[in-house]
Amino acid sequence: MSEVRDRRRARGAGGGAARRAERTAVRIEAARFIERNIPNLEILNTEALEIIEANAETVLEEIGVNFVENPAALELWKEAGADVDGERVRLPKGLARKLCETAPSRYTQHARNPERSVEIGGNTLVLAPVYGPPFVRDAIGGRRYATIEDFRKFVKLAYMSKWIHHSGGTVCEPTDIAVNKRHLDMLHAHMTLSDKPYMGSVTEPSRAEDSVAMSKILFGDDFVAENTVMTSLININSPLTFDSTMMGALEVYARSNQAAIISPFIVGGAMAPVSVAGTLTQVLAEVMVGVAYSQLVRKGAPVVAGTFVTSIDMNSGAPTFGTPEAAQVTYGMGQLARRLGLPYRSSGSFCGSKLPDAQAAYETANSLNVGLLSGVNFMLHAAGWLEGGLVASFEKFVMDADQLGALHHIAKGVDLSENGQAMDAIREVGPGGHYLGCAHTQANFQSAFWRSNLLDYKPFETWADEGARDTVALASLRVDKLLNDYQQPAMDPATREALDAYVAERKASEPDAFG
Amino acid sequence: MSEVRDRRRARGAGGGAARRAERTAVRIEAARFIERNIPNLEILNTEALEIIEANAETVLEEIGVNFVENPAALELWKEAGADVDGERVRLPKGLARKLCETAPSRYTQHARNPERSVEIGGNTLVLAPVYGPPFVRDAIGGRRYATIEDFRKFVKLAYMSKWIHHSGGTVCEPTDIAVNKRHLDMLHAHMTLSDKPYMGSVTEPSRAEDSVAMSKILFGDDFVAENTVMTSLININSPLTFDSTMMGALEVYARSNQAAIISPFIVGGAMAPVSVAGTLTQVLAEVMVGVAYSQLVRKGAPVVAGTFVTSIDMNSGAPTFGTPEAAQVTYGMGQLARRLGLPYRSSGSFCGSKLPDAQAAYETANSLNVGLLSGVNFMLHAAGWLEGGLVASFEKFVMDADQLGALHHIAKGVDLSENGQAMDAIREVGPGGHYLGCAHTQANFQSAFWRSNLLDYKPFETWADEGARDTVALASLRVDKLLNDYQQPAMDPATREALDAYVAERKASEPDAFG
Repeated sequence: MSEVRDRRRARGAGGGAARRAERTAVRIEAARFIERNIPNLEILNTEALEIIEANAETVLEEIGVNFVENPAALELWKEAGADVDGERVRLPKGLARKLCETAPSRYTQHARNPERSVEIGGNTLVLAPVYGPPFVRDAIGGRRYATIEDFRKFVKLAYMSKWIHHSGGTVCEPTDIAVNKRHLDMLHAHMTLSDKPYMGSVTEPSRAEDSVAMSKILFGDDFVAENTVMTSLININSPLTFDSTMMGALEVYARSNQAAIISPFIVGGAMAPVSVAGTLTQVLAEVMVGVAYSQLVRKGAPVVAGTFVTSIDMNSGAPTFGTPEAAQVTYGMGQLARRLGLPYRSSGSFCGSKLPDAQAAYETANSLNVGLLSGVNFMLHAAGWLEGGLVASFEKFVMDADQLGALHHIAKGVDLSENGQAMDAIREVGPGGHYLGCAHTQANFQSAFWRSNLLDYKPFETWADEGARDTVALASLRVDKLLNDYQQPAMDPATREALDAYVAERKASEPDAFG
Repeated sequence: MSEVRDRRRARGAGGGAARRAERTAVRIEAARFIERNIPNLEILNTEALEIIEANAETVLEEIGVNFVENPAALELWKEAGADVDGERVRLPKGLARKLCETAPSRYTQHARNPERSVEIGGNTLVLAPVYGPPFVRDAIGGRRYATIEDFRKFVKLAYMSKWIHHSGGTVCEPTDIAVNKRHLDMLHAHMTLSDKPYMGSVTEPSRAEDSVAMSKILFGDDFVAENTVMTSLININSPLTFDSTMMGALEVYARSNQAAIISPFIVGGAMAPVSVAGTLTQVLAEVMVGVAYSQLVRKGAPVVAGTFVTSIDMNSGAPTFGTPEAAQVTYGMGQLARRLGLPYRSSGSFCGSKLPDAQAAYETANSLNVGLLSGVNFMLHAAGWLEGGLVASFEKFVMDADQLGALHHIAKGVDLSENGQAMDAIREVGPGGHYLGCAHTQANFQSAFWRSNLLDYKPFETWADEGARDTVALASLRVDKLLNDYQQPAMDPATREALDAYVAERKASEPDAFG
């Protein structure tokens, strides 16, 4: 896994200038998506899984779900054999699971740069940035409403971050652009500033249509008809409610064979019971219905079983992140998704802290480790999340992105080749010696250990002389460096013109809407 | 697991005063050691484990180990069937593993308060503070040499920390006390300021003798003869070297039936090969020899298979912490220790950062999660470690100690009782409702979710109004609160006098030695 492909761009050409340029060249590295060579942590035994699965079937049969303001959906459900009463849809036992069977267990999401295409499902793990914050924060400017310029900076940072495979979607809300038009600018940024895969808009079915249309400009009509080029985020209004906006976007994507993550949005204790098994039951029921519905719209449409789980702080009512109960739900839902034969999505850099401080890092590291070991295939919010998702932090983005490198290295598993066994080294060094200079170390040291591009490993005195900088200060420098080193990936000028024209035309076609 | 026992002390007595006192009473909570109800992560398959075990046997047979300046040990090895050549001991295949068989797979370490006694082995996890730093740091005083007053403060903090089960050993080096006498003051502090279990001194065999003698005063001669009351840390000079100081201490403890952790001290790339499989091979070989030796000294002496693994940063030569390679070694060694039938020790709050900032927290959270899931039974350095172990941090101690609560809750596993399944709640709330007020939530919310005693969950505006405090600022307040609330556990005055007298007498018996 983690096959790294390097690209170098020389700043000059020819002779000595070329060699000098080579030495100062910016090196843009991108790791391939993770293919795990380690097992998942299975915290539920078969008996527990079967209890939860049986309970989820009971929920769907007895209680059912609401499809709100969506008569066409109700019609599809009737035809499929569900009991439809007003907006309530009750599913006989086994129906939802049966319908889920036609969803693929793994699919390829293509990027415009084929080397950046990702596989989602099976043993893979794809890492994507934070999604949704209305605010941004950096060390100098503090906390403020996000703008399209902030958005573009995050797209550039994700493009420059070796361990981030995906450009994401609404990395922050560009609040300076009208609500009904900002999806155009966001998609345009992902398509032109990066060559990594991206997510489509879901806030209106028409915006999903725009996402498909712009993707056809980028990839060509035929390619999009036959391939998946977007993975978009469809939230369920837990408990057990499917609204017409999100379902409308899902319908657009499923019909176009574009992938959707079906994700209950759970603050435990508010949108689900205050117990892990109860939450798992509800999440499973909701995911099965959402996935089944996607297959009613189009058999074989690619979908991902999603979870977004936090707990409520029962003292203040605030959501909390990186907690043990969320970990248990994430581990358990991974098992349940695998038994459904579906790719699995969870979240990464979750934290409640207002600052990218120790709290943020504890909570984030807890979530990242859980994501790796619960068999997540698509990790949204893998970098940059702050303050319960209200804030996208520039410094935290690069801090988290650095930690994602550690996940790649753990996932590789243990090398048991003859070189990995290193018996020659142990023989060469012997009791009381040291390994620093031995042949095996010389041959392997450059790739043996993951190395942070951010964290401080200096001796205390050096660190103190250099200003006793904390992680945020180091991260600020790295944000600046990555943005300074950023080079826009090349794009066919005709494609760029067509994208520009589409955005301009659509923006001109209706007045701005805010709020 | 995590059966919590509360003790309350009223500050007054009788009638209204008693009730008022009850309301303001300090509540000292102590969680019972963790008994895991979740599986371990097994990153090595059987084939990989067998390769490493076979390689370790080859290392012991072909290369062997050195027992330095320890003719008595060489004699024991000869009698056991090893090939002894000078100080080099080579073990025929199978000998070390065979000798390990008499070591218990689980033992009880008694505390003077029986409710604080811990079980080490099987599915248990016991959490103990940082060990060894010569410096301390706090937000106000910065970084400075540690003193006995600092040491006592850490013992009090560990006593007051609900999720820390063990008082530890050298929580920091009291550098203001002579090297040859500080063990007496450290033991005295553990014994009198806390009632949790503790570790003995290992820096000289005579200091191990003092530890046994003082324990006999505390517990009584007969009790110590028949029970384990200390778990002490015996480091191996990796690669493959057993020095007479540490082995001398091990001999004292094994003869007294007191437990020892046999821990190779590895900075990967320096004391072991730059590969995970190679490091595991060497660590396994070293642990087997150390454990086997303890059984030569006394069959059945309790021992713990230890690891202390960091990686070297190949650019600077600095050790790094919380890294993926250390995680893999820790997971793998857990599997190898279980196949040896031994309790397992690893490390917790590992980090390289100079400050208790985001770097410290990422690295620490990585290590804590790995410790939980690798089946560690005794986690040393579970709280307070900073700057590669050079510094014990007061703020980080309480930050880490808070995170340890999350480990307890994950380890509990998922409740699948009828109450845990929460089907009544799902039925009561139904589609589109919320769970905040439902009967199941009301009945369960107080214990449903782990809740931090430290981290910030407040709304942004409240947090900003209160000074926009980061985790370190909150931790400083908590350090002060815990030390302010501290109440010394009661002790029989005769025991206290005898301990005081022993320390005074031993201190008077030789001149101070420094350096």
